[in-house]
Amino acid sequence: MKESYKNLVFENPISVLETYSIVGTKEGKGNLGKKFNFVLEDDRYDESTFEKAECKMLSTAVKQVIKKSNHTEKQVDLFVGGDLLNQIISASFTARDFEIPFLGLYNACATFAESMIISSMAISGNFIDNAVCGVVSHFSTAERQYRYPLELGCVRPPQSQWTVTGAGAVFLSKYTNGYPSITSATIGKVVDYGVTDVNNMGAAMAPSCASTLVRHFKATNTNPSDYDMIVTGDLGALGSKILKKLVNDDGYSIYSNHYDCGEMIYNVNDEEFQGGSGAGCSAVVFSSYVYPMLREKKINKILLLSTGALLSTVSSGQGESIPGITHAVCLENL
Amino acid sequence: MKESYKNLVFENPISVLETYSIVGTKEGKGNLGKKFNFVLEDDRYDESTFEKAECKMLSTAVKQVIKKSNHTEKQVDLFVGGDLLNQIISASFTARDFEIPFLGLYNACATFAESMIISSMAISGNFIDNAVCGVVSHFSTAERQYRYPLELGCVRPPQSQWTVTGAGAVFLSKYTNGYPSITSATIGKVVDYGVTDVNNMGAAMAPSCASTLVRHFKATNTNPSDYDMIVTGDLGALGSKILKKLVNDDGYSIYSNHYDCGEMIYNVNDEEFQGGSGAGCSAVVFSSYVYPMLREKKINKILLLSTGALLSTVSSGQGESIPGITHAVCLENL
Repeated sequence: MKESYKNLVFENPISVLETYSIVGTKEGKGNLGKKFNFVLEDDRYDESTFEKAECKMLSTAVKQVIKKSNHTEKQVDLFVGGDLLNQIISASFTARDFEIPFLGLYNACATFAESMIISSMAISGNFIDNAVCGVVSHFSTAERQYRYPLELGCVRPPQSQWTVTGAGAVFLSKYTNGYPSITSATIGKVVDYGVTDVNNMGAAMAPSCASTLVRHFKATNTNPSDYDMIVTGDLGALGSKILKKLVNDDGYSIYSNHYDCGEMIYNVNDEEFQGGSGAGCSAVVFSSYVYPMLREKKINKILLLSTGALLSTVSSGQGESIPGITHAVCLENL
Repeated sequence: MKESYKNLVFENPISVLETYSIVGTKEGKGNLGKKFNFVLEDDRYDESTFEKAECKMLSTAVKQVIKKSNHTEKQVDLFVGGDLLNQIISASFTARDFEIPFLGLYNACATFAESMIISSMAISGNFIDNAVCGVVSHFSTAERQYRYPLELGCVRPPQSQWTVTGAGAVFLSKYTNGYPSITSATIGKVVDYGVTDVNNMGAAMAPSCASTLVRHFKATNTNPSDYDMIVTGDLGALGSKILKKLVNDDGYSIYSNHYDCGEMIYNVNDEEFQGGSGAGCSAVVFSSYVYPMLREKKINKILLLSTGALLSTVSSGQGESIPGITHAVCLENL
């Protein structure tokens, strides 16, 4: 079957000048705790509600990444972002804090890669000079919106993941010598294997991740070994196993260089079960751990795949299954 | 104050090959009733829930616009869309029906223009050849999500609008001689005048619309008289008055050529109060009424401004005001 869709190849590469990450207390105690730019002492971040705290986290990340990139707010051409809350209020209210044109997105936990792809097209196409991409999630706002009131103290099933409290932002710019650059990307299709368990996001997202990954390899004529790291967003331990099996069935082995942000962020134990999830998961792990290694040339080429599960309490309540979507972004030192 | 942001000028213009609109029974009885491609006999569209009906409407619009454009699904490079429901389930589940890469958006009722801007950058920048943009809203799903259960039969205040039941889709392609083309656009900033009345969206959105409109005039060095129509999304009667006053204060008179999709779609009477609103409002009015006039060269240059109000039941419940965002797209016959 002929595949009409072209992989996005950026003949004018886009440079990532800086990143910034801010996380909650639990994330600060995890494997990457020392790598984040800012760890909150209290997940309420001096605000009256968790929702306001989530918004303030993203606002801080955006402000700080602009500063780290030696730019001022007025020099920024575009802010692209999203979050998991209804009507993406965290990103929308963050955008209100800045005099920067705003594009709001929603592809669940795939929003981080989506924001980089849209910004990359805008910059590489010479429409703008730079853009800030930022996404956020917060355990306490997501849990009560998607599942149960926090006060209920529900017991979590073993296949569940833990929504990351964290905001990550990256500053993209026209190609600048010496910085890691975005050279290609693949926009995901919605893939549905019929999973209906709202606690089993890893299984719901893995097929879409395999689909995008294989399409990216084929379109760019690359193999897993061409990448120092193949980094997925928040498949967790179970979802990662499914992904590796699925792409192996398609003839690609990623057993040796696959890493999942959801698996990396916590010291996975009984409480977190499968690891982290949430729109902020791939954003903060990329910003704090993967990007610095690229910048220091410890690694030179990676593929980032943010993975999203498309559902709402209404769709699940009406018996719908949970389709997934995954977008891929290739970053390398040129 | 120096404005860093560049207006988007498409040196490679993007052509709009076709449009498709599908609406509910009430919209079918309005001013534009005979112009829509398909009017439902029942707003439930043979589905078990209004949410499934909303999804089916968008799916139909996407399928039909691809067919009208003499393309097959496999030839479509990208689907960009959104809706008003939590986690944009209507657009996400529509995307599941197609083997087309998908970018999900949320800028409330400004999503239609947002989808055209992102697709335009992707096409004009030579990353893809074509894209389908589609958005949808449904009175019965929006009303119960944002306001009250339908069964409650709440009395509506006089400043309220009526959410349009409708889906609109457009097929964008590389420049094709003889078709109306997108030549420039302006991405909106989030503007907040502190309106907190969730029934008064027109007043909440008008300042952002004025901001984007004036920025577009300045950046493109054009005047209101350069456009045959300046078409806003869903300000309604009251919001339109506020917009005209605000831009007049900035030195631009749009009294003679401003049209609001929300005002045009219904025979405004006691029941609809200020007119229509919803993500589908500007999409179906553009698709069924404005675009055909461009195509037949009855008019030759228009500015479309989709207007969005950024709020959720949580943000309003926590006392937040309602910021607005407006994106502008210029279409003309070249």
